[in-house]
Amino acid sequence: MLDDKTRALASARNFAVLTTLMADGTPQSHVMWVDHDDEHILINTEIHRQKYANVTRDPRATVTIIDADDGYSYTEVRGTVVDTVGGETARRHIDELSLRYFGRPYSNRIQSERVILRIRPDRVIVH
Amino acid sequence: MLDDKTRALASARNFAVLTTLMADGTPQSHVMWVDHDDEHILINTEIHRQKYANVTRDPRATVTIIDADDGYSYTEVRGTVVDTVGGETARRHIDELSLRYFGRPYSNRIQSERVILRIRPDRVIVH
Repeated sequence: MLDDKTRALASARNFAVLTTLMADGTPQSHVMWVDHDDEHILINTEIHRQKYANVTRDPRATVTIIDADDGYSYTEVRGTVVDTVGGETARRHIDELSLRYFGRPYSNRIQSERVILRIRPDRVIVH
Repeated sequence: MLDDKTRALASARNFAVLTTLMADGTPQSHVMWVDHDDEHILINTEIHRQKYANVTRDPRATVTIIDADDGYSYTEVRGTVVDTVGGETARRHIDELSLRYFGRPYSNRIQSERVILRIRPDRVIVH
């Protein structure tokens, strides 16, 4: 179970920085929407993205979720992508996130296929 | 020379996520103040910190600077710590950063010794 603060941060309109590892081990970071299922951090991306290729090769992912109202309040989740969920579930999930962040269903063009990365927290540091 | 947008982001009261690599290659991230010297990203930390041990072992560092007014506007700098600057220069620099971010000189206890990480950008992706 994720701690209360991490779940709260991942339930609101806060941005997360997702860091994955390139083939040579260099960290790659992106600002992302973020969600959780009580036990895992959830990140919704597409399968043609570099970050998806990265976690397919090396499942380690660090997610830093920053309180949009206070940059000094954040949580760092060092974790492992334990599975991915695609299909209709991932498509519905990006609509739910878009409603939360934008107030409307997701309308950007989907270039390949949406996929949810389910990230098991191995270490969580709350700041 | 860093691009205009990255220099602007690193000159204002924006937060950066600094990612370094643990001994086993796992990415570690922290929210940090950020600065630049036109050619390098500058991060001010202390020498007892894990992030300093990390870059001493593996100088790769990725810095994601997020516009405090618009989370969709950010820059990702994948770089290398090319040198570190300590002593009075680093102590003055943390005062300058504190003035920018807090409006007053740095007053937190310095636990070991301040040090500036000078990060050469190897790849910059502006979003």
